[in-house]
Amino acid sequence: MANSATKSKQGRPERRRRSDGERSRSAILNEAARLATVEGIGGLSLSRLADQVGMSKSGLFAHFGSKEELQLATIETANEIFDQQVLDPAAKASAGVERLRALTSQYLDYVQAGTFPGGCFFATVLVEVSMQPGAVRDRLLAFLQDWIGRLEAAVRDGQREGEISKKEDPGQFAFDLESSLLLANTQFTVAQNSEPIERARRAIDRRIKEAAA
Amino acid sequence: MANSATKSKQGRPERRRRSDGERSRSAILNEAARLATVEGIGGLSLSRLADQVGMSKSGLFAHFGSKEELQLATIETANEIFDQQVLDPAAKASAGVERLRALTSQYLDYVQAGTFPGGCFFATVLVEVSMQPGAVRDRLLAFLQDWIGRLEAAVRDGQREGEISKKEDPGQFAFDLESSLLLANTQFTVAQNSEPIERARRAIDRRIKEAAA
Repeated sequence: MANSATKSKQGRPERRRRSDGERSRSAILNEAARLATVEGIGGLSLSRLADQVGMSKSGLFAHFGSKEELQLATIETANEIFDQQVLDPAAKASAGVERLRALTSQYLDYVQAGTFPGGCFFATVLVEVSMQPGAVRDRLLAFLQDWIGRLEAAVRDGQREGEISKKEDPGQFAFDLESSLLLANTQFTVAQNSEPIERARRAIDRRIKEAAA
Repeated sequence: MANSATKSKQGRPERRRRSDGERSRSAILNEAARLATVEGIGGLSLSRLADQVGMSKSGLFAHFGSKEELQLATIETANEIFDQQVLDPAAKASAGVERLRALTSQYLDYVQAGTFPGGCFFATVLVEVSMQPGAVRDRLLAFLQDWIGRLEAAVRDGQREGEISKKEDPGQFAFDLESSLLLANTQFTVAQNSEPIERARRAIDRRIKEAAA
């Protein structure tokens, strides 16, 4: 506040104000995404979050009109973090088996790094809202569909490249890889030791080798 | 209520009262276990539950002194249901591979039957409370440890019987089977179709065959 007032005297109040707003919005949503993995996305109240980021409740209302708006914006922020940590690095790998290894390995790194305190944002929050129809659930299902779609696409690319046997069903293969990732996330979050991460890496490596053409 | 008053006039008020109490307690806890898989065990308030079972809030207080007591009693009820549907039938199978197949197959049946509307009680509620230390989380972790312990024991029995290769690490093997079960539960709950259940059955069958001695 003091900072923003000082800057206003330098003659660029509007630009400064906008930039502060963007910074706060981003800080609020990062905190919201972390909190959602600990207390649930349903527990994301504007007043709880106001306490956490040290803002007034009315200040938060200026950013988000409703709880659902806040929840949806939180999902977008979690999605950006997932892109940066998992999808963007994996996109550098060539299509097929190398991409499949990169997607699964980056996912395990993202879990093991403790990006969110309560484990993978999407895995945790989807379980919470799976029986609660609405825009939040729809958005999470779209995320999940996109993720599984990427695993299946990498399997099909690998089959076209002759790296993966044509006998493999891409849906089953993606299910098998995703199942190791999900259990690793759940067990790591509970136990905070790397054993489930290592087990998932071994299971995935074994499964990919078995599927070799 | 009307019923209970009628019975009192027949001269066995105390016995009748106790039996009604047991019936109500069991009905309340069954409803609580179902609700916990939809709205979360943290959302199990005495007033919400009173509405659901058509009792007064003070009537519910007579059964459970606190929210945590209600939550722990709910977990015991879910545990009894799990025993009946999964552990008891699997205990009839002989130790080793047959037991391993029975445990995993009964678990998938229990999920597919829609025993709880929001999927496996323990999988759902553990994700919710994994970052919330306390008696509820401890009880759920003890359940999970017991379950994984049963899978590992069946693997070791199979190794002793010469059905499963001694090269298999029981911890890794149990992880691989459990991962298929967990993803089947999550995907079935969201999509309500049997494809993930069938995929888990195929993955488990394949994994058990690979481990043959």
